[in-house]
Amino acid sequence: MDMKKMLVNERVKPYLSKARYGIEKEGQRVDLTGMLVHTNHPENIAMSDDHPYIKRDFAETQMELVTPVTDSLKELFDYLTAIHEVAYRSMDENEMLWPLSMPPELPKDEKDIIIAKLANDEGVQYRQSLADSYGRRKQMISGIHYNFEFSDELLQALFKAQSEIIAFPHFKTEVYMKITRNYLHYRWLITYLYGASPSSEKNFFDNDSLDEPVRSIRSSKYGYTNRNNVQVSYSSLKTYIADISLMIEKGILSEEKEFYSAVRLRGGSQVADLEERGIGYIELRNIDINPFDKNGISYEQAEFLHLFLIYMLWKDEEMDCDEWVKKGELYSEAVALEHPLAITQFKAEAETIVDEIEQLTQLLGLAVSEGLFANFREMLQDPSKTLAGKLFEKSKDSSQGQVATCIAKEYHETAWEKPYQLTSFTDMELSTQFLIFDAMQQGIQVEIIDRQDQFLKLKLNNHIEYVKNGNMTSKDSYIATLIMENKTVTKKILQQQGFRVPAGEEFNDIEQALQAFELFSTKAFVVKPKSTNYGLGISIFKEGASYEDYQKSLTLAFEEDSSVLIEEFLNGTEYRFFIMNDEVQAVMSRIPANVVGDGKHTVEELVAQKNQDPLRGRDHRTPLEKIQLGELEVLMLKGQGKKLDSIPKKDEILYLRENSNVSTGGDSIDVTDQISDDYKKIAVDAVAALGAKISGIDLIIESIEVPASANNAYGIIEANFNPSMYMHIFPYKGKSRRVTMKLIRYLFPELV
Amino acid sequence: MDMKKMLVNERVKPYLSKARYGIEKEGQRVDLTGMLVHTNHPENIAMSDDHPYIKRDFAETQMELVTPVTDSLKELFDYLTAIHEVAYRSMDENEMLWPLSMPPELPKDEKDIIIAKLANDEGVQYRQSLADSYGRRKQMISGIHYNFEFSDELLQALFKAQSEIIAFPHFKTEVYMKITRNYLHYRWLITYLYGASPSSEKNFFDNDSLDEPVRSIRSSKYGYTNRNNVQVSYSSLKTYIADISLMIEKGILSEEKEFYSAVRLRGGSQVADLEERGIGYIELRNIDINPFDKNGISYEQAEFLHLFLIYMLWKDEEMDCDEWVKKGELYSEAVALEHPLAITQFKAEAETIVDEIEQLTQLLGLAVSEGLFANFREMLQDPSKTLAGKLFEKSKDSSQGQVATCIAKEYHETAWEKPYQLTSFTDMELSTQFLIFDAMQQGIQVEIIDRQDQFLKLKLNNHIEYVKNGNMTSKDSYIATLIMENKTVTKKILQQQGFRVPAGEEFNDIEQALQAFELFSTKAFVVKPKSTNYGLGISIFKEGASYEDYQKSLTLAFEEDSSVLIEEFLNGTEYRFFIMNDEVQAVMSRIPANVVGDGKHTVEELVAQKNQDPLRGRDHRTPLEKIQLGELEVLMLKGQGKKLDSIPKKDEILYLRENSNVSTGGDSIDVTDQISDDYKKIAVDAVAALGAKISGIDLIIESIEVPASANNAYGIIEANFNPSMYMHIFPYKGKSRRVTMKLIRYLFPELV
Repeated sequence: MDMKKMLVNERVKPYLSKARYGIEKEGQRVDLTGMLVHTNHPENIAMSDDHPYIKRDFAETQMELVTPVTDSLKELFDYLTAIHEVAYRSMDENEMLWPLSMPPELPKDEKDIIIAKLANDEGVQYRQSLADSYGRRKQMISGIHYNFEFSDELLQALFKAQSEIIAFPHFKTEVYMKITRNYLHYRWLITYLYGASPSSEKNFFDNDSLDEPVRSIRSSKYGYTNRNNVQVSYSSLKTYIADISLMIEKGILSEEKEFYSAVRLRGGSQVADLEERGIGYIELRNIDINPFDKNGISYEQAEFLHLFLIYMLWKDEEMDCDEWVKKGELYSEAVALEHPLAITQFKAEAETIVDEIEQLTQLLGLAVSEGLFANFREMLQDPSKTLAGKLFEKSKDSSQGQVATCIAKEYHETAWEKPYQLTSFTDMELSTQFLIFDAMQQGIQVEIIDRQDQFLKLKLNNHIEYVKNGNMTSKDSYIATLIMENKTVTKKILQQQGFRVPAGEEFNDIEQALQAFELFSTKAFVVKPKSTNYGLGISIFKEGASYEDYQKSLTLAFEEDSSVLIEEFLNGTEYRFFIMNDEVQAVMSRIPANVVGDGKHTVEELVAQKNQDPLRGRDHRTPLEKIQLGELEVLMLKGQGKKLDSIPKKDEILYLRENSNVSTGGDSIDVTDQISDDYKKIAVDAVAALGAKISGIDLIIESIEVPASANNAYGIIEANFNPSMYMHIFPYKGKSRRVTMKLIRYLFPELV
Repeated sequence: MDMKKMLVNERVKPYLSKARYGIEKEGQRVDLTGMLVHTNHPENIAMSDDHPYIKRDFAETQMELVTPVTDSLKELFDYLTAIHEVAYRSMDENEMLWPLSMPPELPKDEKDIIIAKLANDEGVQYRQSLADSYGRRKQMISGIHYNFEFSDELLQALFKAQSEIIAFPHFKTEVYMKITRNYLHYRWLITYLYGASPSSEKNFFDNDSLDEPVRSIRSSKYGYTNRNNVQVSYSSLKTYIADISLMIEKGILSEEKEFYSAVRLRGGSQVADLEERGIGYIELRNIDINPFDKNGISYEQAEFLHLFLIYMLWKDEEMDCDEWVKKGELYSEAVALEHPLAITQFKAEAETIVDEIEQLTQLLGLAVSEGLFANFREMLQDPSKTLAGKLFEKSKDSSQGQVATCIAKEYHETAWEKPYQLTSFTDMELSTQFLIFDAMQQGIQVEIIDRQDQFLKLKLNNHIEYVKNGNMTSKDSYIATLIMENKTVTKKILQQQGFRVPAGEEFNDIEQALQAFELFSTKAFVVKPKSTNYGLGISIFKEGASYEDYQKSLTLAFEEDSSVLIEEFLNGTEYRFFIMNDEVQAVMSRIPANVVGDGKHTVEELVAQKNQDPLRGRDHRTPLEKIQLGELEVLMLKGQGKKLDSIPKKDEILYLRENSNVSTGGDSIDVTDQISDDYKKIAVDAVAALGAKISGIDLIIESIEVPASANNAYGIIEANFNPSMYMHIFPYKGKSRRVTMKLIRYLFPELV
């Protein structure tokens, strides 16, 4: 099998950059001073042992963050970032994640390291056996596992480009075996570049300790390795499986997963499955946590590992596999124990490898980040540019522990800075971001099946739910949403079922509408296009209208739509009731953009002050919008005899808009607890009458002090089938109502 | 109460033309020679005694068509027309409806007149008692009942315009009592204008008979009247109720409904309810069937009756109510028995009334059909213009029976002419028209809640279902339709569940897509905008593409949508599977617009011939579309070396389009019985995988002879959430599949 020839095959090349990825990242929970916490795993997170994203590793304080398998590195890092944010915001606000592989200061008595309090007894017993074998301290080391799978298209293309191996699964296994052996041989380069555990903190070492800092304690014999009697041959998959089985039989390993190799062969739940199915993917386990990236691993690192694995496939190996792997172990150990600022003994070899990889990327037409190779050469030239070197340098003025605490604080602050968003998903709607957050927290698998279209797949065990735009779900029937979409139909149905809706008529041509003038002329009424409610073409006549004004309003409305509604105008305040599954989840009152005077500042200054609120932003990226000072606002001020430089009196309220939409700077005020049950019942019953399960229904209420049963106490304006959720979660004033979490629990009632 | 003053009140006038209407129309089923049929009520029609639209009156052959209550005359006639069409097309094609009030030739032995075979015993017993009291012959007379209710707004406005009566229900009763008395007094004018039963057919009269033709046998003592001892006072609602009760007590009437007044007071299921609730509406019962309108009553008649009732409200009555009503009876009897061509003895009075009504319409600003009053004056001047006169005149050359048979045939032909549409609902989608038809036939109440939006409310007993666009229902969840709407999501889900879909990728910018060139360049593939499938911007490369062509196709596609799909091209024929509730209801193959040569005619002539098919029309108003001969068709011919005036050889098939859409003249061919179960199972399972209940799923099948389990035997292109239904009901070739009826039965499983 001439892999070098196969790789440059034109039918192979297009697929080289396609792969599947997954990352696991461990990290200790510490307090704001960098000390290990004594708290349990956060209660906010679903406590299931098989939480797909946030688990406990060896210790109760040791969080393991796990991404799903993704088809691109971008997605991988989007998930990794989001999972970090969910983890941070699920912990106590005074807790943070330790950004190093080596644990923070440990308790003097290792018994005070608390083993993860899992529900599963076997899991606890296994950890107990590890504690007995290796000591608890060593288990507190954290790291990154990088899971990698070549795309099926690539493997198929490679398979077709050769003729020696007849069965595809066997071919695939051979590919991964070669990569694994080569990786084990060359991994010293990874240790050099990305090793990042130069020193340990207090109480890590029991007796013996390291006198000098190194590149990677974790990758050295002092780190997270099996005892010397654990020996596995990589010469073939068969020998690999047989050796591991033998060691378990002999009791040298308690379980398969106790085999801590730098590469683990994956492809089933048990090693024995590999024999049947072949190798499905590999897991690189020798990656230290990168303290200089909030995710513990940078995008560039992940990209390079992919490239490095292609190089491992391309690169010839030596015939004696075991010898080849064994050499690699020695090299890696040597590099791991070098001083972080020392030029490595393998500098020449490393430079050759970098050159070869660069040539290979050109040969295969692979895209790589700019400056990647220059950067590596610099790191080889100047060890202080390596991760270990950098960390060691920074620690000189204080200590590694203090540096780590500072870094952790910075990440902690970033994670809490904008609690209403998921940084890596800000291109999606706020409500969808909330929903992703809540689903992840609850241990529900989230797959984004169409990002542009806000389409999510949520999965808990075998239960799948699809959600679009935050709350379009399987719970509502299609017809219910179509009913809500059509204002005339909504009104007819509500009226037939005895609810009060503004009286009115629909007109499909202007002549007909003009003839109906006398029906409305002396009343308070609204002329509006059928399809838009708070948009263009709406005229309100609070005290009747002249024929000319009536005609003008119709012309305006018919410009917007071929159907126009003329409706009775209802007096009162508009309230949005958010209904889900026959229950009121939140009630909101929306107030037009406004400022409250203090007798000192101008309108312009007051607006600027109000806009300081981090909840206010632009383009629906934040729960509230910044107040604009455009034509409309100036006009509105003028109507009140004010200008931008007027100084309103103390407590004087100036409105800058007529409409109350949050999208034009309005304030959202939660009034759920202020609205009496009778109005809530009307809202719930009306939504039920429409056959809907999730709806934002708008009621005009003349006075919430008056009972709903009073004559004309309320009127229903419309029902919305995709009601905004974020405004209830982050209102301007009043209590937050986490309606996205309610939705998760509605979709997945099996959640406890 | 000065009604004349009240009516001209400005707050009253706008509401005068608002009212609610309902029509009942009886008619005998006859064969094509005009003889009474011996068949039972059509089996196609749900046999329930309380069918809302199509019932049996006295006899099994006597159909009663009932409209729902409507808010406008237009709607009223739309329903009446539709119900007629449903009735006609539910009967045997050799049956039709007799267009006269007087029955066709009756059996010699009146026992051969079959009483309606109702399920309800009481109904049968009541009819038996009528047969005993009046004889079966008399019960065979048919007529129109016109139900009329003033709008609530009008009554409220009138109520406010007076101060004598304090309770609204009482006021309303007084209004209707006045109208009723006046109508009973003046109804002779209606008898004159609209009387239409001049002669009887064979065996109607037992012994005595009429020597001379008259205006209305039905309205005379020879018609459908109670015996003389039935006397009811209309002086107040109380006396009315008391008198009816008394007559039942005495056994003079068997039931309340046996009281055959020209006006019936309505407002509850029993006369006694009137006392409590007041009069709700009135039923005019003295309207003969108008043979010159296919509905048995014309729009103008209905419009005039409304006007006439306003006049009845306006017109003063005499103090002695009983006398006033009694006089009216005598006048009407006199007019009814006048010769149809004789000038009426009340000509002068009639002219005064017409003048007064005309003035009243001007005074109140009411809109009326042009020429209405001129027409009445002509009818008074020339009795041959009245309905009775016209029928009598026409019968001179042959006989009334022959004229009626001719008219009936004409209506029968019209009703069958376009069996794929409901004439009065042709502005709606064909599938919705079918659904209305089927629902009506099944006795489901159909309310059109938004006509423009194809929004129906279907009701059977207490079970309500809403349907939009023919098949958007409560059966599908919102998310299932959103999944189907999004081709990328559909494909992902199907793929995850193991179905074969064309491999492909979605691109959101052209650069990204260009970079992927090598992934597709050597394959058969399609470039298409994400949101439209068979629209613009699609390029097909059956044998790979050059970079230039690839780039061009992307530019085209990105002009249509910001997202573009590049997909593997699948070889084979496309089949549409219509799935409902996990069952295949129909499978259709669509073939591009084409003609088959006969060796004689030119392409142009062949197209013209093919377009003769009454199923072919334009703009989706018919099940198939006419083949166009535009630029595209000419180009397509040119590609085959032909022109419009080429004469294709016998059996040579020439395609005029590349695409197979029915909307561009394609042929739809039902192949349900030709497709094997394994492909059907795939279609059903795939729709289930999407969580959908109603879907048109498109499979490309390489050969239907090859089992579906064969490698790459099929591929799923897309699933449609609002699949066309009419094309399955009226295919170009193959069996009709009445999917709308299946839908009705799916929505209402309680139907037997």
